[in-house]
Amino acid sequence: MKKLINGTETLLAESLTGFATAHGDIVTLGEEGKFVRRRELKRGKVGLISGGGSGHEPLHAGFVGLGMLDAACPGQVFTSPTPDQMLAAAEAVETGGGVLFIVKNYEGDVMNFAMAAEMTDGKISTVITDDDVAVEISTYSTGRRGVAGTLIVERIVGAAAEKGADLETLQALGQRVNGQTRSMGVALTSCTVPAAGKPTFQIGEDEMEMGVGIHGEPGRRRVKLATADAIADEMMGAILGDLKLKSGSDVLLLVNGFGGTPAMELYLMYNSARRILDGKGLKVARSLVGSYVTSLEMAGCSLTVSALDGDLAALWDSPVHTAALRWSV
Amino acid sequence: MKKLINGTETLLAESLTGFATAHGDIVTLGEEGKFVRRRELKRGKVGLISGGGSGHEPLHAGFVGLGMLDAACPGQVFTSPTPDQMLAAAEAVETGGGVLFIVKNYEGDVMNFAMAAEMTDGKISTVITDDDVAVEISTYSTGRRGVAGTLIVERIVGAAAEKGADLETLQALGQRVNGQTRSMGVALTSCTVPAAGKPTFQIGEDEMEMGVGIHGEPGRRRVKLATADAIADEMMGAILGDLKLKSGSDVLLLVNGFGGTPAMELYLMYNSARRILDGKGLKVARSLVGSYVTSLEMAGCSLTVSALDGDLAALWDSPVHTAALRWSV
Repeated sequence: MKKLINGTETLLAESLTGFATAHGDIVTLGEEGKFVRRRELKRGKVGLISGGGSGHEPLHAGFVGLGMLDAACPGQVFTSPTPDQMLAAAEAVETGGGVLFIVKNYEGDVMNFAMAAEMTDGKISTVITDDDVAVEISTYSTGRRGVAGTLIVERIVGAAAEKGADLETLQALGQRVNGQTRSMGVALTSCTVPAAGKPTFQIGEDEMEMGVGIHGEPGRRRVKLATADAIADEMMGAILGDLKLKSGSDVLLLVNGFGGTPAMELYLMYNSARRILDGKGLKVARSLVGSYVTSLEMAGCSLTVSALDGDLAALWDSPVHTAALRWSV
Repeated sequence: MKKLINGTETLLAESLTGFATAHGDIVTLGEEGKFVRRRELKRGKVGLISGGGSGHEPLHAGFVGLGMLDAACPGQVFTSPTPDQMLAAAEAVETGGGVLFIVKNYEGDVMNFAMAAEMTDGKISTVITDDDVAVEISTYSTGRRGVAGTLIVERIVGAAAEKGADLETLQALGQRVNGQTRSMGVALTSCTVPAAGKPTFQIGEDEMEMGVGIHGEPGRRRVKLATADAIADEMMGAILGDLKLKSGSDVLLLVNGFGGTPAMELYLMYNSARRILDGKGLKVARSLVGSYVTSLEMAGCSLTVSALDGDLAALWDSPVHTAALRWSV
């Protein structure tokens, strides 16, 4: 195993300290590293919290800040954070408006966030993301998995929270965005969980895992490596077949790298995916290309299409100031 | 070779098209893909142009936009662009203030940019970057190589150009920033140039290349993999030994991933590097952590320290709006 680390036991703590120090203008680290919190809270605003196993960076800590999350709870690599982390985060960011949990649909995460919600007297609602069309049941989840589309939910709900929307409205908005967002991934190589010390899966030099999950867990099938166009065709076919958009609809296209994919290839995949959307009469109104929801150093990418009806584009465009996404109007 | 491509011959063109489409609000593609140009030029401003082999994305096209470059000329992977690309770019962005070339110190790049400068009647000056302390002579360069520090030169000179500085001032500023910026890299794995189809170098499962260049070319020595702290120690030792900063100086610390390194590891390296700077009484006034000057999918990173004396921090902070760096005051 080749990693830039001092040891597997201290990896998370050292990395979090580095993150919080590098972005000290945006975030602060909760006690014992239980959570990463937005430095400046806005009183009365609904507190948005997400979290999950580490190894998917910048998700979620990289999305803490104005216009997105108020806190993120990092578990060990590919391991759910614990309910006491979520409780501590909820207490830290509750300023009168209640708290919304945004949770990727993995059993450990869903269970632990639910336990945290039960343990508190505070007003807590939850949005579960499950945008991955690849499989209906997987190693770590019942129902579809929550993957890269989660960042779109975090961004759009975060924008609405910033504008003063209440907890009920934000939960409904999150569910709506999740419901019209679909993703699918492909892996060319495995990743190596530091504590395991060896690749999560074996894959041939001429193979790819179509529909892979963000922990390197199996997807739909192991197939021969194909061209970018053929890969994009299969992924967009699955996404659009499920999403059923009318021609002329506005969409957001996210091409997400899994950590080991050069930007050149991500932009090439964007080009392939966009041609398909253009061909179907769908209008790519917003684009995001980069490694945002990763699987350590896995090579591969996911495509995500999200319908941008109503005011969603305006919410997407509104100011955001986090470590990984940053813009102003 | 595992890559998300349709073929090695169309890779660059397809990727550039994807890039220009995804960021159509910021850039436009020159004829025949000779260059990526800033969409909105500012009349009378000095035009800033950089370029080099592809495979280092987001460098340089990802840095085209307000407050940074006016154009970037992409060569084939790890291959210099040609003088006619630079000439076309210079003609496209010259609006009366002259043109400044920012060129990484590699023989092909330096020669081709010089030929372009000779071929034009326009007012052109050049800044050569050579921030890599690892080696004095390498496979592709005489003198030190220009690596990740180049983005700091592009950002600070770009900021000053936006404020109306003239060509002579910008050239002097670029040389000054380059002169007080030092970098060093380490590779854990090789990268694979698409047209070559096989890894650029072989490296053992327990080895790393200390002082590697951004094309995977050799550095100082091949050694056993060490801890992040030990790696940071050696790199910062070389950087600070050469930079000779007074205790109490403000610096910018850039931790740059080479393309295949998880963000967790980059932030951990940031933590290691920062502790060393703190220990020497140097003040990390600005930080940047991410994969900005890459070597395709190579695993590893570089550390860069740049002295932020005078108004440099204010220039760094001024608005920038490019695909890869974006903030406003």
